[in-house]
Amino acid sequence: MRIMRAEQFGLKREVEYGTPEQNASALKIVGDVKAEGDAALLRYSEQFDGVKMVAEELSVTREEIEAAYSDVDERFLTAIREAAVNIRTFHEKQKRNSWMDLSSDGTMLGQIMRPLKRVGVYVPGGKAAYPSSVLMNVIPAQVAGVPEIVMVTPPATGGKAGIDPYILVAAAEAGVREMYRVGGAQAIAALAYGTESIAPVDKITGPGNIYVALAKRAVFGAVDIDSIAGPSEIVVLADENADAAYIAADLLSQAEHDEMASAVLVTPSEALGEAVAAEVERQLATLPRAEIARASIDSYGAVLLVDSIDEGIAVVNQLAPEHLEVLTADPMKLLGHIENAGAIFLGPYSSEPVGDYFAGPNHIIPTNGTARFSSPVNVDDFMKKSSLIYYSKEALLANGDKIMTLARHEGLEGHARAIEIRLEKEGGSGA
Amino acid sequence: MRIMRAEQFGLKREVEYGTPEQNASALKIVGDVKAEGDAALLRYSEQFDGVKMVAEELSVTREEIEAAYSDVDERFLTAIREAAVNIRTFHEKQKRNSWMDLSSDGTMLGQIMRPLKRVGVYVPGGKAAYPSSVLMNVIPAQVAGVPEIVMVTPPATGGKAGIDPYILVAAAEAGVREMYRVGGAQAIAALAYGTESIAPVDKITGPGNIYVALAKRAVFGAVDIDSIAGPSEIVVLADENADAAYIAADLLSQAEHDEMASAVLVTPSEALGEAVAAEVERQLATLPRAEIARASIDSYGAVLLVDSIDEGIAVVNQLAPEHLEVLTADPMKLLGHIENAGAIFLGPYSSEPVGDYFAGPNHIIPTNGTARFSSPVNVDDFMKKSSLIYYSKEALLANGDKIMTLARHEGLEGHARAIEIRLEKEGGSGA
Repeated sequence: MRIMRAEQFGLKREVEYGTPEQNASALKIVGDVKAEGDAALLRYSEQFDGVKMVAEELSVTREEIEAAYSDVDERFLTAIREAAVNIRTFHEKQKRNSWMDLSSDGTMLGQIMRPLKRVGVYVPGGKAAYPSSVLMNVIPAQVAGVPEIVMVTPPATGGKAGIDPYILVAAAEAGVREMYRVGGAQAIAALAYGTESIAPVDKITGPGNIYVALAKRAVFGAVDIDSIAGPSEIVVLADENADAAYIAADLLSQAEHDEMASAVLVTPSEALGEAVAAEVERQLATLPRAEIARASIDSYGAVLLVDSIDEGIAVVNQLAPEHLEVLTADPMKLLGHIENAGAIFLGPYSSEPVGDYFAGPNHIIPTNGTARFSSPVNVDDFMKKSSLIYYSKEALLANGDKIMTLARHEGLEGHARAIEIRLEKEGGSGA
Repeated sequence: MRIMRAEQFGLKREVEYGTPEQNASALKIVGDVKAEGDAALLRYSEQFDGVKMVAEELSVTREEIEAAYSDVDERFLTAIREAAVNIRTFHEKQKRNSWMDLSSDGTMLGQIMRPLKRVGVYVPGGKAAYPSSVLMNVIPAQVAGVPEIVMVTPPATGGKAGIDPYILVAAAEAGVREMYRVGGAQAIAALAYGTESIAPVDKITGPGNIYVALAKRAVFGAVDIDSIAGPSEIVVLADENADAAYIAADLLSQAEHDEMASAVLVTPSEALGEAVAAEVERQLATLPRAEIARASIDSYGAVLLVDSIDEGIAVVNQLAPEHLEVLTADPMKLLGHIENAGAIFLGPYSSEPVGDYFAGPNHIIPTNGTARFSSPVNVDDFMKKSSLIYYSKEALLANGDKIMTLARHEGLEGHARAIEIRLEKEGGSGA
């Protein structure tokens, strides 16, 4: 693991946006499903997933979901149920009420909060199918009050129902009642535009391969989409008191995700930096996903030396990491200075997997420096606001002149006249 | 104005996304400014705005802003100050605090709310320079607590400072202290990547021409951007008691914006529909922007007849209009049924210009049906959330096994080991 001065490090990862051929392919699939509906959906499922279905088989049945329960490990079920409770509890605190503000002249102004009506969650197949991500996508939507939450996931990835039973159980535990065995760009198109079998949604969330990502981008505008997540990151800010073995384990838990993941230690202690680098080597020796983790550590990992914790915080704010662990003597007192970080883990027992799986906050967090301006997935992502304006006759008569002055300055006489016609009729001065 | 049954109407407007040539041009400008900084910025200002400047002249001086005050009408100043107070009061109610949730096992979970650090507001030049839009873009950022709000606007659009004094005064009243006389795609690139004279921002908001829109799309990811607004819309839902002249005036105030604007009346009363259509003709005769308004009414305007107000509400929810006026006997009782509308104006005295200029809610509202899933500009758009996770040793020991079970099911042994190494050292069961 490289050890260097912080100013020598520049974390830049170009995110893959697909080749022109991949883009053309995604657009063609989306266009075909939009035009032909189920027929195209089934044709592409056969072509890409090798599964021949009729339209009636797209929907996952209640019986299949029940059967999935007998295929999952009891300890898994206990753990995911408790995780779901924690996630729900945390996200419920994010929920906001509509409000109204009343004035003595009769004016009422307000903000109405409403859930989206129908949301589609994409769950990838194969090894990228994470039950924990199903919870993290579905529960915020459910807490928001979205009445219809639909899951789509590609068929033929094993298990009785052609879908990983762990995914079915996670979705059922999170509260999904409507599931379809369809994946890829064709599934995104079906969610965006609807087919005979699948009603269209208002928003599509969840990760997928490059074709899924390109299809999501193509349908954006017709529906909302979540942001496209980049490779995962952790930054650990630590002083000389921190445990090198803990830090190494946490860095590796990030590095094992993907060769493009980034795991960085920022510390004023050269001794700690060296100890962590050595521990990373030691722990890598027995890690099942050592090959991936090593590629990540070699390309995007580093120990960054700084003169002080204050300088370390400045480095953290510049990196704006997805995950930040603070392992210093008194981490809480640094909190006010941390401006840019998606999720902040304080102290030696708040290892990142605590948040990835269990504690309650969302594990879908802005990557690649976008924590500067964006937020972890939250209940607001599944709600919309409407402004409410009620003016009394009294309020309009008192303020009509000012509104007309502003409208006329902007050359919008029609706006002024919409006020004037009322002032004239209702007895105010229309001048 | 067309009168038809609601089911015959399909509001579909293809929004302009630019030609390939326009796109290439915007990308080249962005790339040049990113690479060359001020030099490219000044070169393009000369090329497109015909203004030859040195870098020191980019910044609008304090003296210019003060001078602008003597060029604006006193009544305008009074009106815009009162509007600014109303807008600030409304948006302050949107602001949210950070929160923490403490458990008896020592766990602390929270959500930290922070303003973005630096925001750039684009204000178009010429006739599209609306002081009211300056307020609507700037004040929510200011209420969010954004410490640095920068305005850019093209030079040479009149007035002493080469910038419309009304725009300078509106920006100053809204609290902007940093302004640059630069526009177009080159201004967007400068805000996104920074130059020697202009420090980069975290988010860019505000409307512009097609090159500005394409440049914003190109820099998205490096910075956040607001959504690209489509043509404006109003839907009026009215029963037989409503005043036809008021409705016609409100429809025309929308139609005068732009040939692609849409103004629609939904009513169960054929008599009202006919009266409104006649009133629209009558009022059009003397409207200064009659040509624009007529084109809008002819192409995208309509009276839609429904069987009942209930059916009318269903039509409204399908259209998901930017602005909705409800002019029925008891508009408040319909509020719960209105699912999709960006801003809702209730009763005969809440004419849309009341909200466009003065009442307080934002006038930048989702268009083209996107009120189904998005919201008017608000304080949240200028804040970001960070999750906070603090687990005590006790909490980790109690829950470590469940976290490891979930991690191991997903094949992420490194995640499990980050927990296990702590359980082993701290005396919990690592099984």
